[in-house]
Amino acid sequence: MQFTSQIVERAVESLSSFPGIGKRTALRLVMYLLKRPEIEVADMAHALIRLKTELHLCKECGTVSDHELCEICINPSRDKTQICVVEDFSDLMAIEATAQFKGVYHVIGGLISPMDGVGPSDLNIETLPHRVMDQGVQEVILALSATVEGDTTMYYIAKKLTSTTAKVSNIARGISVGGEIEYVDEITLGRSLLQRTEYSVNS
Amino acid sequence: MQFTSQIVERAVESLSSFPGIGKRTALRLVMYLLKRPEIEVADMAHALIRLKTELHLCKECGTVSDHELCEICINPSRDKTQICVVEDFSDLMAIEATAQFKGVYHVIGGLISPMDGVGPSDLNIETLPHRVMDQGVQEVILALSATVEGDTTMYYIAKKLTSTTAKVSNIARGISVGGEIEYVDEITLGRSLLQRTEYSVNS
Repeated sequence: MQFTSQIVERAVESLSSFPGIGKRTALRLVMYLLKRPEIEVADMAHALIRLKTELHLCKECGTVSDHELCEICINPSRDKTQICVVEDFSDLMAIEATAQFKGVYHVIGGLISPMDGVGPSDLNIETLPHRVMDQGVQEVILALSATVEGDTTMYYIAKKLTSTTAKVSNIARGISVGGEIEYVDEITLGRSLLQRTEYSVNS
Repeated sequence: MQFTSQIVERAVESLSSFPGIGKRTALRLVMYLLKRPEIEVADMAHALIRLKTELHLCKECGTVSDHELCEICINPSRDKTQICVVEDFSDLMAIEATAQFKGVYHVIGGLISPMDGVGPSDLNIETLPHRVMDQGVQEVILALSATVEGDTTMYYIAKKLTSTTAKVSNIARGISVGGEIEYVDEITLGRSLLQRTEYSVNS
């Protein structure tokens, strides 16, 4: 791509560093910004800078937070005896969106992946057994991706928690709601057979 | 989408103002930025702000430029007797990328569109006849989109140029290179028949 303006070129290069955004899309975004008022672009720039300068990691659960402790950890109506372990902030948000979980979280910040050079010490795992013991946690729910990395990480965490009295569970794997049996892959279908639950006409 | 951080929410809202970027994609971009070094995010913010604070419109042709006159207008090797009229900077870049045009440009900044409230006075059209007359321009090439708005704008510009001696042409419309006849729409195919060119075995 040939640019006649260094300023535009820098902006395009910068925006195309985003995953999934190529140079053409970045140029379209820049063209859009050129047509917007200066205050709006300044607001956007400020919002991005604040992500790095003002955001904390919650001292308790490790999620990104505006303050030292996040909104969920300081909320007295959340059940502190149940901890849901998630990979990152977007997984936390996905679970919050279900409105099915009233406990608190533990954000580990990634998954164990020897291929990518990510070991347990790179993640926020070590603090979890202490949290469980100190706060009398009764259940730790592992809500990690159903991938090799997710399975490895779950195994590692479950091992770490054997010294505590907390029950460790992981979220169900099975066919999606709305999913048709004939299109489900065999591994998922096999798991959903093994982990079948009793069907009650009253529920 | 429920956010537990105002700072993240602001950044997501800001990025989702981009055309074609929804809240989910914006959250993915924010998650990416959270993992990048502060200097990189600051660079991006700075690159965006410069678009509004340091960029000029070229006094000659109206394209975005780092200086008062753009790189193309100050380039002595460009043919000043040929002007290519384009809608905006990205169209100019698309034509530059073909390396088939050695003249200069005139960027009108949009297309006449009564539906969107865009009239000729909102565009950089009035300066064109003066430029053509003052600089002895011999040909004006209209390279506008093949849409109703593009056609309207071309007609308006061509009318404005009747008082000058410059030849007015527009870029060919026909089947795309690599296009198969059976999949071409009938209007394009009809046009390409009407505007057929002589086939020479030597060319």
